[in-house]
Amino acid sequence: MKLITYQHNEQTKIGAVKGTAVIDLSAIAPTLLDLIKMGNNGLAQARQHSETAVPALPLADVKLLSPIPNPQRNIMCLGWNYAEHAAESANAKGFEIKELPKLPIVFTKATTAVNGPYGDIPFDTAVSEQIDWEAELAIVISKPGKNIPREQAMEYIYGYTVLNDISARDLQKGGKQFFKGKSLDGSCPIGPWLTTADAVPDPHNLRITSRVNGATKQDSNTRHMIFDLPTIIAYLSRGMTLLPGDIIATGTPSGVGFARTPPEFLRPGDVVECEIENIGIIRNQIQSA
Amino acid sequence: MKLITYQHNEQTKIGAVKGTAVIDLSAIAPTLLDLIKMGNNGLAQARQHSETAVPALPLADVKLLSPIPNPQRNIMCLGWNYAEHAAESANAKGFEIKELPKLPIVFTKATTAVNGPYGDIPFDTAVSEQIDWEAELAIVISKPGKNIPREQAMEYIYGYTVLNDISARDLQKGGKQFFKGKSLDGSCPIGPWLTTADAVPDPHNLRITSRVNGATKQDSNTRHMIFDLPTIIAYLSRGMTLLPGDIIATGTPSGVGFARTPPEFLRPGDVVECEIENIGIIRNQIQSA
Repeated sequence: MKLITYQHNEQTKIGAVKGTAVIDLSAIAPTLLDLIKMGNNGLAQARQHSETAVPALPLADVKLLSPIPNPQRNIMCLGWNYAEHAAESANAKGFEIKELPKLPIVFTKATTAVNGPYGDIPFDTAVSEQIDWEAELAIVISKPGKNIPREQAMEYIYGYTVLNDISARDLQKGGKQFFKGKSLDGSCPIGPWLTTADAVPDPHNLRITSRVNGATKQDSNTRHMIFDLPTIIAYLSRGMTLLPGDIIATGTPSGVGFARTPPEFLRPGDVVECEIENIGIIRNQIQSA
Repeated sequence: MKLITYQHNEQTKIGAVKGTAVIDLSAIAPTLLDLIKMGNNGLAQARQHSETAVPALPLADVKLLSPIPNPQRNIMCLGWNYAEHAAESANAKGFEIKELPKLPIVFTKATTAVNGPYGDIPFDTAVSEQIDWEAELAIVISKPGKNIPREQAMEYIYGYTVLNDISARDLQKGGKQFFKGKSLDGSCPIGPWLTTADAVPDPHNLRITSRVNGATKQDSNTRHMIFDLPTIIAYLSRGMTLLPGDIIATGTPSGVGFARTPPEFLRPGDVVECEIENIGIIRNQIQSA
């Protein structure tokens, strides 16, 4: 199932995409976060309703929001989780990478950064002049868990979505810790939907690409992650409870702007697309604030 | 006013401390977060009720929780915001500090780390063997704001509280980005209350201390912050909306465990206290998980 949060007739609802139509699931839960918290029962209800309902609302007639527009806490993100991206990042900073990270590198993005799959990304030179892209596969956690063994980790994934970890490189670099440069308003487009885990049989073999104004910038595959999904979940949950609805972005492959020669950054009017095979495409335009 | 969240007769309520008694403020708002969102109106109601009500419930009879037990997003924390702590941290890592940070260094702690002012801190050697203390002054934001000018920043502070930024140094070091080592369950004791801004005329001149089993470990003053509160608020809000109820920990002075010779870490049974002049004391025991 492709689960969505959408606006129609000035109302915000949740639904499932069925072909080119939307099935309203708001009778089952008010938000996707609530649906996720209902666990398998909620999922079964959504599936049944989605299969039996007669599609009446064209997908083209609704405005898609982030599947979880108001996360209950910051988005957790992996840094340097693709070897070629780790190498290009080190290179851009003037040093060669000696070894790959031995442990996942995790930072967070503020909840206020969350943006829709087609929302504009604010651009304000008083804040940053180095707005960069990072296409990422994001997972959404299904149930509470702490010290989750690797072998059980995949059971904690509710679904998958596409996330653009938009990064203000000047702020990211200045601050050393990444939070500030990763947390500008609108800098976390997510969507277009939350594809439930059953519909993604092998999340470790998905082509992942990004384009700026149609030109391909990143083109890799999730099989190149340094730390795979079970490792990420096991590591993050060590001594720390993961919650249903938690969003974890699993890192970006090589081809980001700041590591290019010469460096490239996004400018007002630019359109950045991130695509993950079998999941979907998000498309956002940079807009002067 | 000293605003609290407390448990009594299996109910969680909010209140104000009046001498050695508690005034129940639950009729005004169900949670402190809701009260904060009511702005000056909520504050005026709380004040009036607190002044006119007859104290009936002794403070000693309630269990204090974190003033905001369920923050709506991660706690934002300053790293290296006291010069002597920046120097001791660099020194412990085997290098001398060349210059102080030019911009605030900001990371976050997970919401699930939040602990009460007297709650136990879990200890699990399978997770970390290097649990360390960091006494900090924390501020709570009063109203939404973005690109807040320094000159107006103090208007955005609802109140002050004491926060122990408990840090798993082995995880913090391994992960490079601080999030994971700062986010273990229970690693963010806060309290004992939220002292409203009017009761703290000069937050930049408060003695800040920590003790382990009664022995003083940190003893400094908030006037030694590298980035003062207006600078922190102005910087964090650049391009990023701050929300009412946001918690910002403003960094710790020198005297933490890992930077000592030899390094000291907390062990089960240890009691760690953090105190800030004119605000209060939090006291937490390390407990085998």
